[in-house]
Amino acid sequence: MKILDETSELGVVERRFDLDVAGEAVPGIHWVPAGATGPHPTVLVGHGGTQHKRVPNVLALARRLVRHLGVGVVALDAPEHGDRITDPDAARALLERLAARRREAGRGLPPMDPERMRAMQKRVPKHLAEWRALIDDLQTDERYAAGPFGWWGVSMGTHHGLPLIVEEPRITAAVLGLAGQRLVEGDRSGRLAGQVTIPILFLFQWDDELMSRQSGLDLWDALGTRDKTMHINPGGHVEMPGFEYRASEEFFGRHLLAATPEPAQA
Amino acid sequence: MKILDETSELGVVERRFDLDVAGEAVPGIHWVPAGATGPHPTVLVGHGGTQHKRVPNVLALARRLVRHLGVGVVALDAPEHGDRITDPDAARALLERLAARRREAGRGLPPMDPERMRAMQKRVPKHLAEWRALIDDLQTDERYAAGPFGWWGVSMGTHHGLPLIVEEPRITAAVLGLAGQRLVEGDRSGRLAGQVTIPILFLFQWDDELMSRQSGLDLWDALGTRDKTMHINPGGHVEMPGFEYRASEEFFGRHLLAATPEPAQA
Repeated sequence: MKILDETSELGVVERRFDLDVAGEAVPGIHWVPAGATGPHPTVLVGHGGTQHKRVPNVLALARRLVRHLGVGVVALDAPEHGDRITDPDAARALLERLAARRREAGRGLPPMDPERMRAMQKRVPKHLAEWRALIDDLQTDERYAAGPFGWWGVSMGTHHGLPLIVEEPRITAAVLGLAGQRLVEGDRSGRLAGQVTIPILFLFQWDDELMSRQSGLDLWDALGTRDKTMHINPGGHVEMPGFEYRASEEFFGRHLLAATPEPAQA
Repeated sequence: MKILDETSELGVVERRFDLDVAGEAVPGIHWVPAGATGPHPTVLVGHGGTQHKRVPNVLALARRLVRHLGVGVVALDAPEHGDRITDPDAARALLERLAARRREAGRGLPPMDPERMRAMQKRVPKHLAEWRALIDDLQTDERYAAGPFGWWGVSMGTHHGLPLIVEEPRITAAVLGLAGQRLVEGDRSGRLAGQVTIPILFLFQWDDELMSRQSGLDLWDALGTRDKTMHINPGGHVEMPGFEYRASEEFFGRHLLAATPEPAQA
């Protein structure tokens, strides 16, 4: 991990880094509590489609987790996102096409175009290798070596996160969501979900334009773990309420930090 | 409100009271922060069927809300529950019958028997009048007069709570759950739910023996408010995870106390 820049603001150190994976420099950010010296957990955050490692919701989540839980947070640009866009004209054209289709649709997002879907699926194995290389790298530092590691990623962040948590035993709790059966990894979604054994918080929007209610319920239902909670809110794909970030913080606090026992069951 | 007894433990004052409603003494408990002098919100807690005003989950929730949020909490015995059981032999026989049917069912609760269901429905209007009289009484004290008032009640607590929050504008946020369309107030449930306009947290168990998944989703879907969240966990009717009490605390903190603004939407 090559640190390119370091700033500090209100108790949060932000380090811009490049990670060399198979000869390619993968750009990322590492947020850590200012002055932290001892070991602490790390949450990996996977951004959504057309987003990047430092969009407002990722940045706000990172700062919240660092300040409130004292954990570290890392984010990477996914292939063909953020600083890794190889064809800026094509990326701009895609955003314009999405905006135009959105205007046509009246409200909310248009359905995913199959070609974009296939391109996204093709990038999954490459990005998984990058996340695993990042965990390897973090573990060379004794502060992060022992983990535990968490995952937070909805929408495209679940397309990457679901196969990652199945392949990667070092991740012990994950927030997923804004995804449905059949949409994640095509026909592999059910099989993948069944292999999940770690605690999951699954965030879902009841009026998501990109998938049916049933496909979201099916994906949550298929998760192989008993420790799973689904939060459903009204509204479209990009209308998830801000308080679900607080719920995510509570979830990681419970699973990544030494937990305070909860009262007995109802 | 006639105070019969007052104790104090770890910052929580507990007052056992009787409230006179239409000539009947309705037994209740009022928990308040020790030493609190200024105005503060009150959460009304409706217990479940066969339970009473001081079962462990009600007591733990009350202490949690008083200690962590500084609000007051009140609970009443529902008609024919707790200290209001008029035929102790019949009550004991019911519990034994339920236990026997539960053993037969192998795991979890047996389906609700239609006669018990009708008896429960018949008691609803009476208990609603008692809750409204309790709010009237609380408002004669300037510390509680301004509210706001919240409701927490799942299972039978929702059978009472859903019609109460529709009739009672002084309740401004509610936690409901472990209930389904058609089970609440018979055929009135959909119509009642549609009239709900306050923020709702709806807690549901995916393997509830007393109702179908679809009936729970339908009831949540029918709620007329835009500010509603459904939390779904695996497990049966009495297996709701303890962390949902923490989620309830977070919900009341957000809606009954002056709220800290949440970060922008995703």
